[in-house]
Amino acid sequence: MGFIIEFEPVGLRIEAEPGQTIMQAARGMFNPESGGVSAPCGGKGLCGRCRVRLVEGQFSPPNETEKRLLGEKDLSEGYRLACQAVITGPAKVEIPPETLTGRQKLQVEGTKATVVPDPVVKRYNIPLKTTSVDYPYSIWQQVESFLFQNHGLSGLRIDPGLVGRVEVLAKDNPITISIRGSEITNAFPTGSRRKAVGLAVDLGTTKIAGFLVDLETGATLAADGILNPQISYGEDVISRLAYALEGEAQYGRITRVLREGLDRLLRALCNAADVVLEDVEEAVIVGNTAMHHLLLGLPVDQLARAPYVPAVTLPVEIKARELGLSMAFGAVAYLVPAVAGFVGGDHVAMILSSRIHEARGVTLGLDIGTNTEIVLALDGEMISCSCASGPAFEGAHIQQGMRAVDGAISRVEVGDGGFKLYYDTIGGSSPVGICGSGILDAVAGLYRAGVINYNGRLDTGHPRVRFNGERKTAEYVLVPSEESGSDRDVVITQKDISEIQLAKAAIAAGTKVLLGKAGLKVEDVERIIVAGAFGTHLRLESAITIGMLPNLPLERFQQVGNAAGAGARMILLSQTERRLAEKIARDIKYLELAAMPEFSNHFLSEMGFPE
Amino acid sequence: MGFIIEFEPVGLRIEAEPGQTIMQAARGMFNPESGGVSAPCGGKGLCGRCRVRLVEGQFSPPNETEKRLLGEKDLSEGYRLACQAVITGPAKVEIPPETLTGRQKLQVEGTKATVVPDPVVKRYNIPLKTTSVDYPYSIWQQVESFLFQNHGLSGLRIDPGLVGRVEVLAKDNPITISIRGSEITNAFPTGSRRKAVGLAVDLGTTKIAGFLVDLETGATLAADGILNPQISYGEDVISRLAYALEGEAQYGRITRVLREGLDRLLRALCNAADVVLEDVEEAVIVGNTAMHHLLLGLPVDQLARAPYVPAVTLPVEIKARELGLSMAFGAVAYLVPAVAGFVGGDHVAMILSSRIHEARGVTLGLDIGTNTEIVLALDGEMISCSCASGPAFEGAHIQQGMRAVDGAISRVEVGDGGFKLYYDTIGGSSPVGICGSGILDAVAGLYRAGVINYNGRLDTGHPRVRFNGERKTAEYVLVPSEESGSDRDVVITQKDISEIQLAKAAIAAGTKVLLGKAGLKVEDVERIIVAGAFGTHLRLESAITIGMLPNLPLERFQQVGNAAGAGARMILLSQTERRLAEKIARDIKYLELAAMPEFSNHFLSEMGFPE
Repeated sequence: MGFIIEFEPVGLRIEAEPGQTIMQAARGMFNPESGGVSAPCGGKGLCGRCRVRLVEGQFSPPNETEKRLLGEKDLSEGYRLACQAVITGPAKVEIPPETLTGRQKLQVEGTKATVVPDPVVKRYNIPLKTTSVDYPYSIWQQVESFLFQNHGLSGLRIDPGLVGRVEVLAKDNPITISIRGSEITNAFPTGSRRKAVGLAVDLGTTKIAGFLVDLETGATLAADGILNPQISYGEDVISRLAYALEGEAQYGRITRVLREGLDRLLRALCNAADVVLEDVEEAVIVGNTAMHHLLLGLPVDQLARAPYVPAVTLPVEIKARELGLSMAFGAVAYLVPAVAGFVGGDHVAMILSSRIHEARGVTLGLDIGTNTEIVLALDGEMISCSCASGPAFEGAHIQQGMRAVDGAISRVEVGDGGFKLYYDTIGGSSPVGICGSGILDAVAGLYRAGVINYNGRLDTGHPRVRFNGERKTAEYVLVPSEESGSDRDVVITQKDISEIQLAKAAIAAGTKVLLGKAGLKVEDVERIIVAGAFGTHLRLESAITIGMLPNLPLERFQQVGNAAGAGARMILLSQTERRLAEKIARDIKYLELAAMPEFSNHFLSEMGFPE
Repeated sequence: MGFIIEFEPVGLRIEAEPGQTIMQAARGMFNPESGGVSAPCGGKGLCGRCRVRLVEGQFSPPNETEKRLLGEKDLSEGYRLACQAVITGPAKVEIPPETLTGRQKLQVEGTKATVVPDPVVKRYNIPLKTTSVDYPYSIWQQVESFLFQNHGLSGLRIDPGLVGRVEVLAKDNPITISIRGSEITNAFPTGSRRKAVGLAVDLGTTKIAGFLVDLETGATLAADGILNPQISYGEDVISRLAYALEGEAQYGRITRVLREGLDRLLRALCNAADVVLEDVEEAVIVGNTAMHHLLLGLPVDQLARAPYVPAVTLPVEIKARELGLSMAFGAVAYLVPAVAGFVGGDHVAMILSSRIHEARGVTLGLDIGTNTEIVLALDGEMISCSCASGPAFEGAHIQQGMRAVDGAISRVEVGDGGFKLYYDTIGGSSPVGICGSGILDAVAGLYRAGVINYNGRLDTGHPRVRFNGERKTAEYVLVPSEESGSDRDVVITQKDISEIQLAKAAIAAGTKVLLGKAGLKVEDVERIIVAGAFGTHLRLESAITIGMLPNLPLERFQQVGNAAGAGARMILLSQTERRLAEKIARDIKYLELAAMPEFSNHFLSEMGFPE
């Protein structure tokens, strides 16, 4: 009898036997060859680098090796060594960022922001004279007078904390200062740093993408992604909000891990681009309203239950240091305004970068994720909604689902009536599990091959379909263990198919409701923007086959990658785009699906597959 | 053999005999009839209310009564009971604010600000609907949409801390919000409070004057003053800066006592005007650069030594809560920009309220205090300097000097060749000491009567002049003890006269240097503005007699009271005046007297009295 061991933040669920160590149970995950997790000594209990944290459930008591290598503090916080801790029951395990290796990176590309840089922060070089009896002016007095005389700037303010950070008596060296609006926010000796940069963040429920941008040229200097460290406290927004509402300590924790994760991402980006942290002059953060509120620590009681009302959708400006971001001293984090419900600044940024707000005719825009936001635009009139598509496309709630990391099956072709199967894995290694685009392909392929009927039922008479007595569910064997060389089969279960049906029904129903509100038919849609990492990697034919996306000619579709991240970069670079984003947020009409019987009706009828 | 016991913050020095209690030594000061200090039980060791703190020196060890009434914590911090602690040597004693009674109030009047109110903070009433499934909008979403639709406001920001302070789910009641620039800073149910008010503060080295102002009508609702609680750490700016430079703990302490004092003053004003603290929407603070820096905790190493360079003279805006001021949640404290040296925002405010910047012809403006700032204006061209006139006019460094509180001799007439003397005391009680205007009158009168010669020497042959062997100085008996009913004579010593000579020479020399720089003669001055509490109460004839003020017809003089406080109120009330203040600060030319040999020359020649 096996136990389920869940790994966060990679999202993998495995079945383990009592008596196995975590590392034995997780098989390939700790294999230094396939990447994934640190285990430099190969699991011999020598290096202590395979630290993981027990979040739920229990293991065998810590042994001597663990006591020696981890120490009391780590042990008291639930840390264990994956090569030593023995499984005694079902458990949830968090793999801390330092244990995850570099290869666990997420894809973060997006359309290139094409704006004329006009950032809110500007730098000025100021020549200085030495303060003396004959020239009794401090650095800041010289700065003020230079800016007034040479740039006509007056009414400047200064963050008093910055005054104390710069030597009062200047040597003859010039200094460079940064001004944001009318406030001086940064200062350093001229020539000691290279460029003013900004941080753009797409704060997703599952993934956080960060971009380091040159504020002068607009070039992206580094891009990187991490998994949202809040995942250990819930996979979707509702469960995370529920956790935050458990108490102040819980809310404090979930906010802290997110802020710490953001700061780690910032540091990694600066490191990659060889930029000093003090050169990061502004941050722009986009995210759904739940991520936005949890980052800021705003009240979420209204957001956690229908009709899902955010406390605030106004733009928020906060000193980056108050969020724990190690940037320029006076740097500000600007949170792009939200619309309503869970429709946040990420949706606004997606619309901005794909220019949906100025498109003529009928445009549909979908940002597919754990929450999927949809906008329908008709000559600039926009109406948006959000639907809980769930984390199935992230690989969660799927028997052998996993995120799009090394070892995940990402492409599937079903041939020969469901008897032959072709697949690719990310990184080309042996299949460990299956990620969103792979599941979508598999379900679509099996439906086309007749192995799944229009209600989503597996044909139990098919030779590759078997009944798993333990799980009490039918399952289709995608990759038998003898083929992959692994010790278990990769399967798709009846329950997995149901999860995909729920997800795709939510997206399709949301689309239908929007079209209905606007009095339009599916055929009227002239252009469909599909955004998000999954949206970019999915095979459109598969998505159309199962009815997730409308059945329209492929040339009307455009897969735009991380459009929210691209929008965040535009808002970072240009004050004009920032004002435009604020206007878009105000102009969008919001539709709360929870209030609409049409949604439930469409949702039920969209559960099946199209004929 | 007596010891000197110094009392702060009242500034009184008394001579005490060993074996006396503090209360006995301080005689009238603890008399409940004459006001001053709490001693409800009359010094019987019953009430424990005459708590004072030993700052320097030592007393007898605490007795049983003190141990019982004070407790260990108080004793360890140096607190003693004035009726129990016995004098054993010279000492410095601080009278904490709670021991000082209400009658120790300072004069705070000033010219009435006459501006059209146009404050930086504005209030709006917002009607609200209940959030529901059919109306899924939070308070802040409704606020944003109402302000955009009804007032055309967009691009508003919100202090995220404020979001959490207002219930997310609104009932049907309207709310009122405050907007400062583009930021929402305050919110409360409409009708629950009365008026938007602001705090104007004149932060002096010795005194702090506070004004609570109705931001709509411009009316001053309450005015009050306290002694600057930093006095225990030094009487003039230089000694206070030196204390701050002793170490972080010292700097922290001197900043903290000032912030706590300001908050006490704010609370007292709100109490007097029956205003809730959350209605105080903005603070404007003016002060010399030392007070400014010590309040904000800015670096002061450059300011503490020649050429006395402030770290920053730019306007500073800081959340009032960061200064420990209990105002509206998002309220801002605006510190009026400074000029240079010790010439701070108080000087700018003084010029603004007395309209020196727009006066035609030649105007001289003096704000007399522990530091005296002087401005010379010629058709709007302004040049300013600051001179260390010392705290003699505040009653300090004067044998029996004291501040202008109850029991201080404030007016003196010397008649009959120095044999007859007429005087008034503040409050009409028996003379305890002598304050600035009294000393000025006395010295001028004695000079006119020939008891003091042009070098400032007392005529030792005069019957009321005696030699005090203990102090080794000549002294003139102003009020013999048998006349006042007190147990000691009130005297003016040769050293007191020297202190006055130093103070008036600094002011006169500063004036001369400014006139010299502008190529003007004393006679060219068409109008002299004399500001400050002492400047308002001094007798002009006396100041002219001793050569402190120029010998010009009295009708050219104008005594304007607390002009800095009046200016602070104008800057609080009007955005136009605020911009004007920033322009004045930029336009003033600053003269550093420390760099000028002319100043030393004038200073020496001004030590004597005019023929």
